Amino acid sequence: MSFDFIENGSITSAAGFLASGITAGFKRSGAPDFAMVVSESPANFAGVFTSCTFAAAPVRVCQQLVKTSPYLRAVIINSGNANACTGEPGMESARKSCAIAAKALGISPENVAVASTGRIGVQMDMSLIERGVALAVPALSADGGNTAAEAIMTTDTVPKAAAVKVEAGGKKFTVGAMTKGAGMIDPHLTTPHATMICIITTDAEISNAQLQHILAANADESFNRITVDGDMSTNDTVLILANGNSGVKIMPDSPEEAAFKEALLALMQNLARRMVMDGEGATKFVEVRIKNARSKQDAKLAAEAVGNSLLCKTAWFGNDPNWGRVVAALGYSGAQIDPDKCDIYLDDIPVVKNGGDAGTPEKELLDTVKKREYTITCDFKDGDAEYWVWSSDVSYEYVKINADYHT
Amino acid sequence: MSFDFIENGSITSAAGFLASGITAGFKRSGAPDFAMVVSESPANFAGVFTSCTFAAAPVRVCQQLVKTSPYLRAVIINSGNANACTGEPGMESARKSCAIAAKALGISPENVAVASTGRIGVQMDMSLIERGVALAVPALSADGGNTAAEAIMTTDTVPKAAAVKVEAGGKKFTVGAMTKGAGMIDPHLTTPHATMICIITTDAEISNAQLQHILAANADESFNRITVDGDMSTNDTVLILANGNSGVKIMPDSPEEAAFKEALLALMQNLARRMVMDGEGATKFVEVRIKNARSKQDAKLAAEAVGNSLLCKTAWFGNDPNWGRVVAALGYSGAQIDPDKCDIYLDDIPVVKNGGDAGTPEKELLDTVKKREYTITCDFKDGDAEYWVWSSDVSYEYVKINADYHT
Repeated sequence: MSFDFIENGSITSAAGFLASGITAGFKRSGAPDFAMVVSESPANFAGVFTSCTFAAAPVRVCQQLVKTSPYLRAVIINSGNANACTGEPGMESARKSCAIAAKALGISPENVAVASTGRIGVQMDMSLIERGVALAVPALSADGGNTAAEAIMTTDTVPKAAAVKVEAGGKKFTVGAMTKGAGMIDPHLTTPHATMICIITTDAEISNAQLQHILAANADESFNRITVDGDMSTNDTVLILANGNSGVKIMPDSPEEAAFKEALLALMQNLARRMVMDGEGATKFVEVRIKNARSKQDAKLAAEAVGNSLLCKTAWFGNDPNWGRVVAALGYSGAQIDPDKCDIYLDDIPVVKNGGDAGTPEKELLDTVKKREYTITCDFKDGDAEYWVWSSDVSYEYVKINADYHT
Repeated sequence: MSFDFIENGSITSAAGFLASGITAGFKRSGAPDFAMVVSESPANFAGVFTSCTFAAAPVRVCQQLVKTSPYLRAVIINSGNANACTGEPGMESARKSCAIAAKALGISPENVAVASTGRIGVQMDMSLIERGVALAVPALSADGGNTAAEAIMTTDTVPKAAAVKVEAGGKKFTVGAMTKGAGMIDPHLTTPHATMICIITTDAEISNAQLQHILAANADESFNRITVDGDMSTNDTVLILANGNSGVKIMPDSPEEAAFKEALLALMQNLARRMVMDGEGATKFVEVRIKNARSKQDAKLAAEAVGNSLLCKTAWFGNDPNWGRVVAALGYSGAQIDPDKCDIYLDDIPVVKNGGDAGTPEKELLDTVKKREYTITCDFKDGDAEYWVWSSDVSYEYVKINADYHT
């Protein structure tokens, strides 16, 4: 088996998918803010969503679809209004949005999913949905994936789309995806948990149950490993659609299924990494890797504490090789750690040895922390469990974006 | 019973306590960085400390003293070096610091406590301790409390000292305190958990066991309720010394004990509030109050999630009445909340009613969020438990301080 990233790949790289991105008017800027994805034939599907108690109306509509609808034909996504904390009227708006799109496409409303991102607590202006659908349907195209990826951006500075071509046992199929999310990023996508929005398409044929299982497992190894600000959103949504157009059928526990899962993970990790790189105001990409912990839970607590530490994140911004803040975060993480055994590395350079200063000259450390991207490895030497997260720094620009932006 | 704050009160407002603050040379700036507190007679004592796994050497020395030493005569505190993550040599330095002070004062080392704050991972320069003690002993004075409060500052912009005069059943005694801490503030002081350092003195007579019990309970209602950055320190230390010089003996479960506890809480809350007000780069003081939750644990999870949310804290800095971020934080807090019942107020102004927009014009909300100090109240209408925390905003100045400062 092998897979390759496709140049300029997107959700429409998979056969039988059309997409468009247009300006409906949700954003005051006039930038594109409404995307539509359509499968030419019924697509099996699965979803993982925010675990926030105040899950937005579109999230609740999608959760219902996952339970009751056999397949999807379309997904509509707007940026600029999250339709969260909008009560029953918001639910009605989300359902009606699906119905408006369904009518325009000549399909059934239960085959249309909806995702929203933007300001919380504002009722949807349904005239904008009407306009969005009216403009998006005629704009649908087999190479519209990248315009759709642009239309779902909020504080993102670059659109994020990718696709992989997979070959397994002589059979070929494609998986494409787009994602947005630069702030309110600390996804915990369980079956069904991330304001990231990610839409994945594949032309493989695979059952809803397989999709759900693989999507949830892969989310745990990708979107659930990233944090920009430690704030999970009301609207996080990851949907995958599989329309079978490649003619490749993926059976449970087959080598093709393993290949699909692996390629999908590579795609999801690629997008997760780019979300962190494009995190609000981010100037650094830092991988925090815990090794040789007593348990995976200990490793996870430790990695997440460092990845979410405001003091660490500001030190990263300041190019400060400040391992004291890393140690402090490990110490309050709740993880079982023997402080006298802990080693810490910046990339491959030792900074802490057995809980104390490793003696590396600060100059050498500075060379590492000045890089755009580096890894902090904490070796607890106390077991064999590991965990990693991807995080970004907190910069002046982060504060500016979030002091000014009305979510 | 009654109590009053004393003008310019400090740790030396309690009878029989001497203090000094001098420049030993830990800080490159030449600002005062070494403080000494001495009780003229043996003082009962208690302490609560950081729960960080990597507790600093001086914390471990104090924890040992609480277990084994019957009384204290002195406390030395340096700022500029935390003596954390310094291994066995660091432990040796902490013990030796006590011995140096003891010798100069003609007392026993087990009657001297030590606290440190500053950079992590650097071995103590014992010549600075020698110099500090040599300068601090002759400078000891019965009105030296405020100079001591200055010497323990790190990124604090103002010294924080206070004292209360208590009258209970015709008996009068005094409780004084000083504290530092403007960053790495999210104390979880349990018997024995906050880089805040707080030294409390009283001239009442009260047992070590009573002190420990009262100190821990009051810490839960004061220092454990504050967060500046969500980062707990390796060095948090709160020590209370009671020398009995007022002649007032406080018996267990007596009205005097209740009066002592109440007055001490007022003092600790006064200092806790000022720590948040003086939080690194802070321009806002925000009380987050949860009402009518199902359980205190639910209320605590919810209050701490909002109080630590980076998105909320940047919105506060931006004078943004952004309740969406509050709701998002409540939603991911893990607290049991019925989203359709949740009401939120900015001071007394409703912003969320039953989980949706309360319809208050933004102009009215802006008047509140522009204030230096306000309260966000979340009423879950689902029980009778409550909890509150005090938090500050995250500003450009916060990032500047923490990108530049070497902890």
